[in-house]
Amino acid sequence: MKKEIYLDNNSTTKIDDEVLKAMMPFLQEKYGNANSLHNKGIEVRRELKKAINTIYTELGSNDNDDIIITSGATESINWILKGIYFDKILNSKEKKHIITTSVEHPAVLQTCKFLESLGVEITYLPVNNNGVIEIQDFIDSIKENTIMTSIMWVNNETGMIFPIEKISKICKEKNILFATDATQAIGKIKIDLKNTNIDFLAFSAHKFHGPKGVGGLFIKNSQKLSPLFHGGEHMGGRRSGTLNTAGIIGCAKALELANKNLIKENTTVLELKNHLEDELLKIPHTFVVGEKNQRVQNTCLISIRGVEGEAMLFDLNKAGIFASTGSACASEDLEANPILSAIGSDKELAHTAIRLSLSRFNTKDEIDYVIEVFKKSVKRLREISSSKIDN
Amino acid sequence: MKKEIYLDNNSTTKIDDEVLKAMMPFLQEKYGNANSLHNKGIEVRRELKKAINTIYTELGSNDNDDIIITSGATESINWILKGIYFDKILNSKEKKHIITTSVEHPAVLQTCKFLESLGVEITYLPVNNNGVIEIQDFIDSIKENTIMTSIMWVNNETGMIFPIEKISKICKEKNILFATDATQAIGKIKIDLKNTNIDFLAFSAHKFHGPKGVGGLFIKNSQKLSPLFHGGEHMGGRRSGTLNTAGIIGCAKALELANKNLIKENTTVLELKNHLEDELLKIPHTFVVGEKNQRVQNTCLISIRGVEGEAMLFDLNKAGIFASTGSACASEDLEANPILSAIGSDKELAHTAIRLSLSRFNTKDEIDYVIEVFKKSVKRLREISSSKIDN
Repeated sequence: MKKEIYLDNNSTTKIDDEVLKAMMPFLQEKYGNANSLHNKGIEVRRELKKAINTIYTELGSNDNDDIIITSGATESINWILKGIYFDKILNSKEKKHIITTSVEHPAVLQTCKFLESLGVEITYLPVNNNGVIEIQDFIDSIKENTIMTSIMWVNNETGMIFPIEKISKICKEKNILFATDATQAIGKIKIDLKNTNIDFLAFSAHKFHGPKGVGGLFIKNSQKLSPLFHGGEHMGGRRSGTLNTAGIIGCAKALELANKNLIKENTTVLELKNHLEDELLKIPHTFVVGEKNQRVQNTCLISIRGVEGEAMLFDLNKAGIFASTGSACASEDLEANPILSAIGSDKELAHTAIRLSLSRFNTKDEIDYVIEVFKKSVKRLREISSSKIDN
Repeated sequence: MKKEIYLDNNSTTKIDDEVLKAMMPFLQEKYGNANSLHNKGIEVRRELKKAINTIYTELGSNDNDDIIITSGATESINWILKGIYFDKILNSKEKKHIITTSVEHPAVLQTCKFLESLGVEITYLPVNNNGVIEIQDFIDSIKENTIMTSIMWVNNETGMIFPIEKISKICKEKNILFATDATQAIGKIKIDLKNTNIDFLAFSAHKFHGPKGVGGLFIKNSQKLSPLFHGGEHMGGRRSGTLNTAGIIGCAKALELANKNLIKENTTVLELKNHLEDELLKIPHTFVVGEKNQRVQNTCLISIRGVEGEAMLFDLNKAGIFASTGSACASEDLEANPILSAIGSDKELAHTAIRLSLSRFNTKDEIDYVIEVFKKSVKRLREISSSKIDN
């Protein structure tokens, strides 16, 4: 069999075999509509309730909170921002202000740009050399008319952990709603929502070995948020549409396994990533974005001066190693890496990023092979590069 | 094995084995993100393109139209109505008017009610005894400020076919946008979009033996419609979020099979449904909503005076027969059937509806058994009923 080493887990992940096993009956004989009153619906409804309870438990949510299953984090994020627009901005006399960061996922950035076009005031906080925002910048950006802050928990490109706890606490004190895109946090950080000041939290199952097309939105204290999907009485009228039963079952099982594997993430995955990173940093003129101890276990965004990211990807791909130059959500254009641009890298450097994101399915042998291929490839590419960087 | 006769196909359907077979690789080894630049993405992207081409072909869409994959019809419908709100209503000086019917799916009705709360003027056209709107009522409802009409192609409760062709033609002449919820039409009617005046068409795969959590929105001539999901560049920037590859593959295969089986729908399924309907109508004081020749093949909404719908469902369920009292999307309350109320049935009658919706997987033996159980149950329930109806 051809070698396949998947190091693009921040883009999407393989469904865990146990997850697929749990989903299968709902793709076959258990096809009933969870809202139907007959046995074919009842059997599904019973198991869905259990699955949703699992999701509550695994995220440490209270019973009086809501966790609504959506088609993924992009839906959840659009729902939060547009819901707030309808509920608190559209009919308000004063202009309202939302704070976010310049390095959010496009789902947040593009929705914010859309709200700007409707007259909402948005602050995009810059990041420091470390790829994270400064608390003081956040405090300085708060205005009288600030109603919401939306900041990612973990950056998708660097793996840097953002100071969510501190920021949400400040928001709470100032009576500002706090939302977070936790898409890259689940499965990497233990999340215990009852002990946070988070009002809204968005996630996608396919980032933690669950199926694509399913995710969720946590809503603290079941507070008001106008639906993004109006319609039938599904999910207590908060999110309409026939329930994606297989997806919900898969999401719950994946979340359970993600938390169960956190120890492995913090030992094996972390060790593999550190080994990879340490070896690659031995190549001259390379650096990794973000302090190691402020990053999640699995991610390494490395910049190799004199080596175009796309050329490197091509070499890796040929050797059966799958990585990326950054977020797949923005990869249709071969542009500069947004986070390298955001931290102020020069134009050449901004095109040199390679993101390596591991998972619990990677092995030591795989990583050793990656190191070998990577080093050879850097050597080759630097030799043909116009930058003339020493190896 | 316990007897299971599924006659609730307007609520949801069993995934066809061939559909699941096509989906399986994308739930297993083909887990790449379709937007990734490496082989793991490329192999998925190639097959997704083929699948989306299949969807275009099967719906008779032109290359310059857009068909965007969504999480289902509820998303597509919310997208149409809210997109139009943002694009044409929010910043318009004059009040805008939308025409729909009083018997649309809750996805349309509740979204329209939401728009009403924002100041949009909505006309809800009544239906006649036949359960359909009158063309003249539609013409009379058109105003100077009418910008859109949204009318279902096939009613989910009665199976009645609405006069979409005539209405969309009038809309075209009057420069009014025309949208249709085709959720119950696909797999029952051959759809050839290039020969219609439909601007927007919404559908869900799980209604035609595809997976839950996936559907689509057809947009004629790729005309402007502000996204419901802002974010990355997926689906040409029209609908963001990591592509649900298994869902898209399943949707395409299900659509292909639905069209291939139209002949069977128009012969076997129609004959089975007619046999069932003819036999049940022999029970005194029963009627079926809607002219037989204006209905799709598989649906029969029958009212049996003196028999509570829920009691009947209970009896059927005990015998392994799964039907409904109406739409599962509104079934959390045991309310009067909305369509029976809409056609002006008295209060007692409005609680007597049973919807039987067949599929290509039903057999003659099943239907004969249903007839037998149904007749016995009506007899029993009428005997204990306060209405004292003769059997």
